[in-house]
This record gives sequence, structure tokens and C-alpha cells, in this order.
Amino acid sequence: MQFKTRTHNCGELREKNIGEDVVINGWVDRRRDLGGVIFIDIRDRYGITQVVFEPTFNSQAHLDAKDLRSEYVISVEGVVRKRPADTDNPELPTGHIDVMVNKLIILNEAETPPFQIKDDIDIHEDLRLKYRYLDLRRSKLQKNLLLRHKMYQVTRKYFDENNFAEIETPVLMKSTPEGARDYLVPSRLHKGKFYALPQSPQQYKQLLMVAGMDRYFQIVKCFRDEDLRADRQPEFTQIDVEMSFVDQEDVFNTVEGLMKKLFTEIWNKELKTPLLRLSFDEAMEKYGSDKPDIRFNLDMKTLNSVFNNTGFKVFKDAIDSNGIVTGLLASGCGDYTRNQLDVLTDFVKGYGAKGLIWIRVKDNGNGSELESPTMKFFTDEEKKNLIQSLGAKAGDLIFILSGPKLKTLNTMGVLRLEMAKRLNLIKEDSEPKLLWVTDFPLFEWDEEAKRYYAMHHPFTSPRLEDVQLMETDPGKVKARAYDLVLNGNEIAGGSIRIHNSELQAKMFKALGISEEEAQQKFGFLMNAFKYGAPPHGGIAFGFDRMAMIFAGENSIRDVIAFPKTASAVSLMDDSPSVVSEEQLKELHIKVR
Amino acid sequence: MQFKTRTHNCGELREKNIGEDVVINGWVDRRRDLGGVIFIDIRDRYGITQVVFEPTFNSQAHLDAKDLRSEYVISVEGVVRKRPADTDNPELPTGHIDVMVNKLIILNEAETPPFQIKDDIDIHEDLRLKYRYLDLRRSKLQKNLLLRHKMYQVTRKYFDENNFAEIETPVLMKSTPEGARDYLVPSRLHKGKFYALPQSPQQYKQLLMVAGMDRYFQIVKCFRDEDLRADRQPEFTQIDVEMSFVDQEDVFNTVEGLMKKLFTEIWNKELKTPLLRLSFDEAMEKYGSDKPDIRFNLDMKTLNSVFNNTGFKVFKDAIDSNGIVTGLLASGCGDYTRNQLDVLTDFVKGYGAKGLIWIRVKDNGNGSELESPTMKFFTDEEKKNLIQSLGAKAGDLIFILSGPKLKTLNTMGVLRLEMAKRLNLIKEDSEPKLLWVTDFPLFEWDEEAKRYYAMHHPFTSPRLEDVQLMETDPGKVKARAYDLVLNGNEIAGGSIRIHNSELQAKMFKALGISEEEAQQKFGFLMNAFKYGAPPHGGIAFGFDRMAMIFAGENSIRDVIAFPKTASAVSLMDDSPSVVSEEQLKELHIKVR
Repeated sequence: MQFKTRTHNCGELREKNIGEDVVINGWVDRRRDLGGVIFIDIRDRYGITQVVFEPTFNSQAHLDAKDLRSEYVISVEGVVRKRPADTDNPELPTGHIDVMVNKLIILNEAETPPFQIKDDIDIHEDLRLKYRYLDLRRSKLQKNLLLRHKMYQVTRKYFDENNFAEIETPVLMKSTPEGARDYLVPSRLHKGKFYALPQSPQQYKQLLMVAGMDRYFQIVKCFRDEDLRADRQPEFTQIDVEMSFVDQEDVFNTVEGLMKKLFTEIWNKELKTPLLRLSFDEAMEKYGSDKPDIRFNLDMKTLNSVFNNTGFKVFKDAIDSNGIVTGLLASGCGDYTRNQLDVLTDFVKGYGAKGLIWIRVKDNGNGSELESPTMKFFTDEEKKNLIQSLGAKAGDLIFILSGPKLKTLNTMGVLRLEMAKRLNLIKEDSEPKLLWVTDFPLFEWDEEAKRYYAMHHPFTSPRLEDVQLMETDPGKVKARAYDLVLNGNEIAGGSIRIHNSELQAKMFKALGISEEEAQQKFGFLMNAFKYGAPPHGGIAFGFDRMAMIFAGENSIRDVIAFPKTASAVSLMDDSPSVVSEEQLKELHIKVR
Repeated sequence: MQFKTRTHNCGELREKNIGEDVVINGWVDRRRDLGGVIFIDIRDRYGITQVVFEPTFNSQAHLDAKDLRSEYVISVEGVVRKRPADTDNPELPTGHIDVMVNKLIILNEAETPPFQIKDDIDIHEDLRLKYRYLDLRRSKLQKNLLLRHKMYQVTRKYFDENNFAEIETPVLMKSTPEGARDYLVPSRLHKGKFYALPQSPQQYKQLLMVAGMDRYFQIVKCFRDEDLRADRQPEFTQIDVEMSFVDQEDVFNTVEGLMKKLFTEIWNKELKTPLLRLSFDEAMEKYGSDKPDIRFNLDMKTLNSVFNNTGFKVFKDAIDSNGIVTGLLASGCGDYTRNQLDVLTDFVKGYGAKGLIWIRVKDNGNGSELESPTMKFFTDEEKKNLIQSLGAKAGDLIFILSGPKLKTLNTMGVLRLEMAKRLNLIKEDSEPKLLWVTDFPLFEWDEEAKRYYAMHHPFTSPRLEDVQLMETDPGKVKARAYDLVLNGNEIAGGSIRIHNSELQAKMFKALGISEEEAQQKFGFLMNAFKYGAPPHGGIAFGFDRMAMIFAGENSIRDVIAFPKTASAVSLMDDSPSVVSEEQLKELHIKVR
């Protein structure tokens, strides 16, 4: 099938091209047969151009055009003309011209697609994923992929210009005993042995620092075989970064520079730097989250000082056991019905709260008065201080939760987001909010295992001033670890690493990891460190999530060309799938 | 350990900085203690700077410097000065200055490395791979990785500027029954099912064309579990490209544009385009290879016409059974000894030849005369024509091989390369030669299985003029397939694809693939094609090999940060490795 190469794509022709002979290739987007004249909208990635088949202009082409159906692939030759008066389509960049066709070649026919190729279709996502190659013809998804393309280029250009070396790290790597969520790959050449797919190139990038590569970056696929939550993918993309001879400030500067570029190039917005920084403790107390969404004003307030001498047992127990009493003021919600409040109570119970204290703020003509079943337990002074502390006014609603610190703050954080949704505080055009959360705890206490775990990973450096606490009070040690948060999403996280073997030994001790175990788990990295490791630190961005936010989408699947479902299945090709017994034999494994 | 951020890297200071207070961080490259004064070369990725510890300048720093050993990581503060007269090192860009140190901080100590950190060390590669993080400190490997970095950037910039969209395709994909060399990944969530790692994103990129993405590229990891030859890696990197509404010429133009850029940016050489094109047949007859190295003049010559009526049974049998008689003229090698000729005969026998005919060209005072045990079988006319056909002169040596066409040409091609090596025809500074090999056979006959296989893959389009031969004489059908060859290495290969279901059906028929089988193997791609596939084609580059050639290396391992050995093992981390029974249980598999 011979056809002429296009002279223009479908988004290109303008009034300046009127009179030109052109060749256009693309898909039949829309077909209108007005008896005498047939109008076809031809579509490609670049746009839509209207072409016209008129029997008086070319009778053969007009005849041929009668066969055309939606999604046929065609090539037309014709002449650009100004559209007749009053038939312009100002919504299309090509809307002032059309092409009078004198030759039509059908390059390929098409069956009727299972759904229409247009934006805002209301069909089940499963069908879209099954026919992803048709779904991707929709301009919205094409725009998302092109935005993602642009993000890749902006990111790499930035790192290139800042002396970072792009280096590929292995995909077939070693499985570590830590690697419970590793995808494994059986070796054919080495019976009974397995590779693992990287959950991140963490160890490799640290080795590259030991190797003196100084500044490394990579946009890289990573893999985690976890029980999938709604918005996770078994394979995901990271911007991975590591730098030598740096402290936290250097990492921040580097990252802020990148984000400035992305804001400008993708959103055409100026990002003011340096960014806001919140410590983990502040973020938790104010927003009940280590990835606070600060696009709206709805802050939590720690009320321990208000209730320091309380007789209310619930609060007293919380405060006495190092817990917290936290309040949230919902302005103007004083008229919430009992039913609405019950729904919210159930909501926080769903997150593990034992109950939700709510207090309506009324005007008693003489100032504010609090109304709530709980009020009988509060002294007048407590009421006064509560109102003052929260800045409550008549007509407002107060929520209070108490209990173990992090858990309680988290629950209130979720309620805060829920209230923001109910009050419609996040507008389509809300300014995006980007900030750092810093000073994460170094350790996380596991109540079940009765031991500490590294909150990030065991190579994360403590704050130097906290090193002395590692043996005496590990829970108080803060890490030189940081997250970058955009609109309530953690889009990046990293840390300054331990590069000193003495400190590393302390870390392993605090984690209850014996020398042997450390050797087995991290041997090759620890060996490398013996030969002169520079101080280093880095960060890794969740690229899919970041692309989702920049694209204004709600699902990462809408910014991934061929995503998998929440159960890690590709509906398009039905993977994973059963393989032949022969293949398994070759790999020295069998299914059990 | 507190240290100041460097003000300059180790490659940066010049005479213009003299008198400045600076901070330098890096590794101790070399240490000379002249009793009174200690000189240290500090090294980082950017270069080497000499720093000086003088007791009269700063006695504490001088004292501290006594502890320094090779590969210690240090931070120094000091003042830049002009080097004393006659102590300049003009080989270093920083060689006209040094830094008088007034503060030294040892950031990390280092054990004595297992080999010296310098270029041109003579140690076993296994040791280098085990301590890859030290190997990578050598400037040669650092340069290779930085060259590779640059190749990434040049490549992506080029495709970006030419409207190609960078799109990531899945790494966890479906295994096909074709996928004998697939790496498999057991699914934890779906018992008994497996993903496969892509040998190439071929099907995805074709789906992206069906999806209307128009122009796609990606620099992407691929995987092949083959019995490794010396210069293969289980995971390798491809530049993957696909374009819609194109013919071969468009692909050639695009690729030549990229190669022009790479030649300029990496080699600072101008590449003249359009490139030379050789058909597969020409390449085989002239160079005995489908990836001919044409940097030197040593051409083969098909001699069938010389021996058309020969009585020499060996040649007659070859010609009668559609085979070939091919000759190679080794200029000036007429004095090769019998021993040398025996070695070469054994050499070609190693490639499956039954023997090697060699003929010395002598001067009998009256013109050229041929001397060889075989001469008794040749007529005088054959001798005359042979001399003429090859342009042989006295003092030359003629080699002749005969037999089945491709096999014999291949063997002579290998001999051609061997002679080029012996005659030292490829010089260090030989101009690089880049060319296209086109018109590959569509099918390859498998003598064992007695059937045709697709030489590229079953979606490769035949030349349109050859379609009629597909049923009658498949062996004669040429494909719209092409390879890009640089200095005798295939660096890229691709084809125009079949986009038409009728032609695809013919193709499957010729390959003996039933409709059912095709559905099972390529179902989702074939389904996609029903909904309007555009004409499309593309190419994929072997990025590692290309980087190797641009870096002037002989092994792809020298342009890969963390390569595996020929038996697919990582000596650094000992992967693949045994994993826990628990992990295998989780994945529903066991070792057999």
C-alpha cells in the first residue's frame, strides 16, 4: 500500500497555508455526510483538521469517502482553502481552514471501537485498560503522556546542567533478607539462585558516591510486590538523586531548583524559594500528617496545656501517658446536625479513634458558650482557655481527640482533610503548596515486635546533636531525613546518610542488628565504606505521583502508558499468566 | 563530623584564583612527605589539585596530615598560591597552582585498596568487578560513564526536538511462548502465574503507534536470559524508536540526524550523510558479513562466473547446488610460509570450512603465475580470469572458499577480518565507518526444523514488490529491514512493520503459524491492529555497544557502571543468590 508522506500533521495548517497542496495522514475522528458533501475530521496526536469531499471537486475521492468509518486510518491529498463564511470553528487552531480532497487512500480499516474516542467518557476503567491502545487515543491521556515526556526532559536537563551524571544501575540485583517485598527472578544458569528487582537503587547510588561519581541522578523503574492500595503500581518510576560532600541544605537547594523549573515549564507558575520547612513534630501537631496539605486554613491545635489539670479522665489519661489532646476548629459548622456529627464520629472511629468530642460554640448574648455532652467535665477556665486557644467564635464547631500522640494526631489529620472536603476548601484553582517536612524521628517503635525499626533505612544519619541519645532515648533521636510535600502528597523523600563506620555500628546496635546480620544484609555496601566513603545524601522522587499532580489527575494510572490494576494485573495482555512447564523446568523451579 | 562545603571542586582552581581562601573536598590520590613539607594530590570526579602542608604555614594542619593515607577522604581549607618556580605540572589543568592548607579534616579513613586507583592497571577483571566501587574511581571508567551520560542527553534532546514522545513501557509484562529466553518473575498475588521481563518493548511500541502517539522513543533496559557470549549482558540498554506514517527513508533520515549529533558532540567529527547503503546481498558478497567493517580495503569477490564450467569437483558441486565460490586477495602476502597458511586453514576450519584454497601469485618474468597444490585442477583460462577478476599481482596471495552461500561467505568474512588484523589494516586513528545494511531476507531457513523463521520478527514487512513471492519462493523475499553498522558492529536494527491484517495473515502462513497459534502468541497486538493501525516502522539501538565504540573500549563492561560477568553473575554483591524458603513459599514456587 503506497501513500505519500504527510506534508503537515493534523494540527498544523493555518490560513497562511491557503492554496497549498498538502498531504495529511490520520484517523477518521468524525464523519458527516451531508448527501452532496462529506466532511471528515482527521485526527492525529497534533490536532484535528477538517477535510472535505465534494463530488464537483473530485468525484472519485467523494465516492471513496463514502466507505469511511470512525477510526479508519487514511491519507488524503488536497488543497487548503479558507472555510466558507460562517463555517469557521474558532475552537480548533485549524478551524479557519479546511482541505478540499482530490485523493483518498484508506491505509487501514477499523472495527467499531468498544468505546468512543473522546474525553470525559463514562465507562468502567477496566474496559479502558483492556483496550488501552484505544484509551490512549483520547486527547486527555495523550496530553498526560506528553506532559510526562516534558517532565522527563526538564528534569534531566536540570540535573545535567548541575553536573549530575546520569548512571544506570542494575535491575537484576541481589535479594536481601530485608527484601520481603522483592520481586524475584529465578536464574537459569545458576540453579536454585535468584535475582531480585530493585525496590530502589539505594545501595547502588551510595556505592556510586563511594566510587567518587560525586553527583548522580537517574529516572528509574523500581518494583515493590506489596498488597496494592488503590493508587500503587507494582512497578513505578523514581527520580533518584545522590550527592557527595553535602549537607541537608545542599540537597534542599538542588531540589528546589528542580521544582522551580518544573513549576515554570509545566505549570507556567513561579515557585518562591526557599520553601517552607516544617519539622515532623510541627507538621503532625498542626496538620496531623507528615505530608500536610496546606492549601487551606484549617489548623489543628495541641490542647494539652489547656487540660493540664483536667479532671476529665479521658484527657487526663492521655496526658499522663505522654499522649496528646488535639483540637480542630471548624469555622461556621456550629449548625451541624446530630446526624452529621454521628457520621463524622463513625468516620474517625474507622481510623481507630475511640470517639470524637464535638462542641458547638454558641452566642449566649454575653460571649461564647460551649454546647456539648462533654461540657459537664470541663471547668469554666478550661472552656475559656479552649475558646481562646482555638480562636473559636459563635457558630463554630470544635472537634477534640485525645490519646497516644502520633495515632491521635494522624486521626485528627484525616478528619481535617475530610472537613476540608466537606467545606470545599480546596478549589480547582487553589495555589499549589510545596514544602519540606524535616527532622523525622530516626526510629519507629514497633509495638508488636517490641523493637525499634529505622523509619527510613538503616543508613539514615541522625542529627549530629542527637547522637548521644541513640543509646539512652532512641525514640527522641531525630534523623537528617526530609520529605518534599506537594498539595498533601509526599512526592520525594531522602536523607543524609551515615558515612562513618562508628556511627553506623551505633545505628545497628540501636536497631538490634548484630554485626553478623549487618554483614549478611548489607555486606557489600559496608565493605565499600571501608575504602573511603565521602559524606553524602540524596533524595528520591515518586515520579508517577508527581506527574499525576502536575497533570491535575486523581489517579497515577492516568499518567502511565500501560498501568496495571490494583491487583497487579495488566488487563490488556493478561499478565501475569501461566507459563509452560518447559520454561519452569529450564529455570529449575516448580509451582507449589 | 562537621566540615565546610567545598568552594571549588578538585578540577577547578586556576591562576586567577590565587590568593583566594578555598575549601576542597576529595580523596587522597598521592601523598609525598618530604620531611618538612607534605604534598597531597586531592582527587574527585572533576580533577586533581595539589595541596601543601607546611609546618611554618600551619603546624597543626601539617601534624594532622602525617596521618593521611591513600584514599582517605578529606576536607581542607587553605589559600591558593602560585606554585613555586619550576614546580608547575603542565599536564594538570590545575597544575600552575596549589593550596596552602591551614585546616585539615579527615572525613573518613580508608583501608589499603586491593589495587591501585589509576588507569592501565594490569589486574584480573574479576577483582575489578568485585571492587567495582573502587574500579569506578579510575579516571578512565569515570570518563566512560560521563561519556555515556552525555550520549543519553544528546539522544534525548535530539528526539525531543524532533517531536518524539518519551514513553515508559512496562518491565513486568506477559511471557509469550516465543519467549524461551525470557526472564520470569513469579507473582505472589496470583499463584502459579508469572510476569516476563521484556526482551524488547517491541509490542508496546507498536501499540503506541496504534494509540496514535505518532513518534515514540525510550532509552530502556531489556533482558535476555541467553547463554552469554563474551560481550553480552543479561540486562542491556536500548534506544527504542517507532514512527507512524513513515517509510524506510523517514527512519533513515531520523537516525542519520541522531548519528550526526552524536558524531559531533561525542567525537567532534562531522558525519557525512546520507550514509552508504549496502544490500544484505552486497554486504555478504563483498565483506562476508551483514555488519561489515569497511574501515579498510580488503574486499571479497564472488568467483562463480570464473569457474562456471570448471572441472574442479569442489567448485562444481558448490555452483551446481546454488552455492558460491568466493575469493579474497591478500596483497603482498605471497611470501606466507606453509606454516602460516596451515594456521589460517585451521582457522577457517574452526568456522566450519572443509578447507582453504590458497594460491601464491608469482612473477614468471612473463606475467603472473599461480602456485598452489590446487592449480592442477584449473584451466589456463580460469587462472587468467581469476587473476583478472581479483586484480592479483605478483607477490599477492589468493584465498578461495566454496560451498553453501551464506555459510561460505560468512567464513570468508571472518578470514577477511583475521587478515585485516594480521596486516594491521585497522589503525587507532582509522576514520569510523557508519553504513546501512538493507534488504535483509524476510525468512531464514532452519535446516534442522525444516521450516522458515522470521529473520527479524513476524511483524516485519516484506518489500512490497516481493509480496507475490511469499507463497512461491519465500527464500527470495526481502524484508523492509535494516541494520545500522558502525566499524563492523551492528549498533541498531529495525524494520517497517506490517500494519495490514491481510499481509500479516500471509506472513503467518509462510511461517507455518496457525491462526490459533498467532492469536495465542500475539493476540493483544493483533486485536489492537483491528482498530486502525497506521503504517509504522522503527529501530532499536544497542546502547551499550554504541557507548563502547564511542568510548573506544573493547568491552561493553567498561561502559556499564555495575556489569555482570559472562555467566550473568555480579561479583560485587554475589547475585544471583539463594533466597529464604519463606520467600519462595510466598511466591508459590520451589526449587526442583
